[in-house]
Amino acid sequence: MEYRKIKDEDDDGGTVSDDIENIRGKGFPGVASVSTVPPREQAKWKRKTIVTLALTFLTSSQAILIVWSKRAGKYEYSVTTANFLVETLKCALSLAALARIWKNEGVTDDNRLSTTLDEVIVYPIPALLYLVKNLLQYYIFAYVDAPGYQILKNLNIISTGVLYRIILKKKLSEIQWAAFILLCAGCTTAQLNSRSDQVLQTPLPGWIMAIVMALLSGFAGVYTEAIIKKRPSRNINVQNFWLYIFGMAFNVVAILVQDFDAVMNKGFFHGYSIITTLMILNHALSGIAVSMVMKYADNIVKVYSTSVAMLLTAVVSVFLFGFNLSLAFFLGATVVSVSVYLHSAGKQQR
Amino acid sequence: MEYRKIKDEDDDGGTVSDDIENIRGKGFPGVASVSTVPPREQAKWKRKTIVTLALTFLTSSQAILIVWSKRAGKYEYSVTTANFLVETLKCALSLAALARIWKNEGVTDDNRLSTTLDEVIVYPIPALLYLVKNLLQYYIFAYVDAPGYQILKNLNIISTGVLYRIILKKKLSEIQWAAFILLCAGCTTAQLNSRSDQVLQTPLPGWIMAIVMALLSGFAGVYTEAIIKKRPSRNINVQNFWLYIFGMAFNVVAILVQDFDAVMNKGFFHGYSIITTLMILNHALSGIAVSMVMKYADNIVKVYSTSVAMLLTAVVSVFLFGFNLSLAFFLGATVVSVSVYLHSAGKQQR
Repeated sequence: MEYRKIKDEDDDGGTVSDDIENIRGKGFPGVASVSTVPPREQAKWKRKTIVTLALTFLTSSQAILIVWSKRAGKYEYSVTTANFLVETLKCALSLAALARIWKNEGVTDDNRLSTTLDEVIVYPIPALLYLVKNLLQYYIFAYVDAPGYQILKNLNIISTGVLYRIILKKKLSEIQWAAFILLCAGCTTAQLNSRSDQVLQTPLPGWIMAIVMALLSGFAGVYTEAIIKKRPSRNINVQNFWLYIFGMAFNVVAILVQDFDAVMNKGFFHGYSIITTLMILNHALSGIAVSMVMKYADNIVKVYSTSVAMLLTAVVSVFLFGFNLSLAFFLGATVVSVSVYLHSAGKQQR
Repeated sequence: MEYRKIKDEDDDGGTVSDDIENIRGKGFPGVASVSTVPPREQAKWKRKTIVTLALTFLTSSQAILIVWSKRAGKYEYSVTTANFLVETLKCALSLAALARIWKNEGVTDDNRLSTTLDEVIVYPIPALLYLVKNLLQYYIFAYVDAPGYQILKNLNIISTGVLYRIILKKKLSEIQWAAFILLCAGCTTAQLNSRSDQVLQTPLPGWIMAIVMALLSGFAGVYTEAIIKKRPSRNINVQNFWLYIFGMAFNVVAILVQDFDAVMNKGFFHGYSIITTLMILNHALSGIAVSMVMKYADNIVKVYSTSVAMLLTAVVSVFLFGFNLSLAFFLGATVVSVSVYLHSAGKQQR
């Protein structure tokens, strides 16, 4: 059994690009340089940079942990219990952060844990969308193999851009759209291998499912951003707490449906190892980083962040595991790098 | 024996992009629309568009003729005689065009055939540069195979851009540089096949030769542009005439050195067929189109033109010869298309 959820988020796209974007964007000819930006803007930019770098670092180390643990053999633990622990850990970390804030700032309207039905009713929706997407995942493998699915997942990049535009009504400049298409093409190129052409033979139902999954995943991401940004002054840890509470609830259902017997017979923690623990820890932290990026940056930054992380993972794997980089990887990495630059350069056009 | 020169120019890079560039550039927000452009500018733009489209069409049909003739079996004729005929035909066509001009406009300082040493002394230089490059070509195959060489030839794109900047002192905007890097990455991606990774194992002398060849080829192209543009009012047909006279002279030497015995024993036209004739005709016309693009546009347009032609060839080959397009081709074609768009969008930045 595999730690599917980790693999999943790994591709759902976020960005080291945005800090680059900001550094460049601010130092660009005709645009105020960093030093003339008001302190509040600077603080915002710093926060955005930190969460973006954190997401990139966590996402790339996530993939490396997966490779590492695979070398050590197959997992024996149940995916659903691991996912439940990830949600629980994220919930606990949000509460810990809140406790510190309450101690320092006192309880206010923005950081109190209690909520209204009006605020909380939308929180289960992203979790539900991911659930449907994960269910579809079982069926799509009737049409494509796993490496082919990894390639098709790059459709998420395009669907996120389109839904970001439609749902959040935010504009990307023409050059930023061009950059987004390049990001998708570059990521796919970097993942090409000798059997990738089989993807083109995917039958129509496979294509439709891939597109539906990309839309669900993009919608879940953009919807989460909409929820979190709807109340800008609301503390992110409270928002996370409620998101994760529903995540826990959904995962309890998943354990009961899918792994009830295994958990009953072998125990909840059967098959756990140091690597499992590290992966759960990493996954929880990157989940929080995703939320932070949604709050302080956006889905576009998230997509860039995870794309750059994918490239970083490959480069680090050369040193750690002796992997070879293909010519396709170099070409894809070049295209992704140019895309990151263009996303920042395209900001002026907006 | 293969019609090497045809294959060669096929990759030396030139653009359908520029007409797009112009159409877009002019219809762009904030920039005057086509209808408000003065008639002289419009005529210039029209001429630029026509020569660019002609070059793209001729280059792509050139490659298709090569595939077609290969299917019909190997060539029996000598390459040097075919190259000589190409130069002779170009010379004859230039003279024919001049005769018409003389009849209509009379002989002027700009269209008279007689020249000065000062004007003509630089004309043999591009031909010499190509000669050295073609000699190197024999040696590089000790390090890379033919498909690998096709991939390395994309370095011409970068060398042309760099030398264009240095020698002609013309500026490309940052976005146009990004577009140029993308053009190189996209063309290479489109040509990827299962054995392309071997290129990365090319030994150092192979890389050095590939880079030297790219620089020679880029230098020859940029130098030709410099020669032709040095006297803007001089009639292009006179300039071509002198370029081609030296081309003929160099090819006479090549026949004597390389194929003297074969020509003496079997005759000058031994092994010629309808396809050979078509290829010579096509090659002569595209040679003239390259000169026209140098005169009325530039090397950047030439590089885009031949890159787009490479993609067109592949698409047309699907219908003509039942070729399959790879996923890498689609990705490369996407990147090249975005590059064409960015080159036009980047014009405003300049």
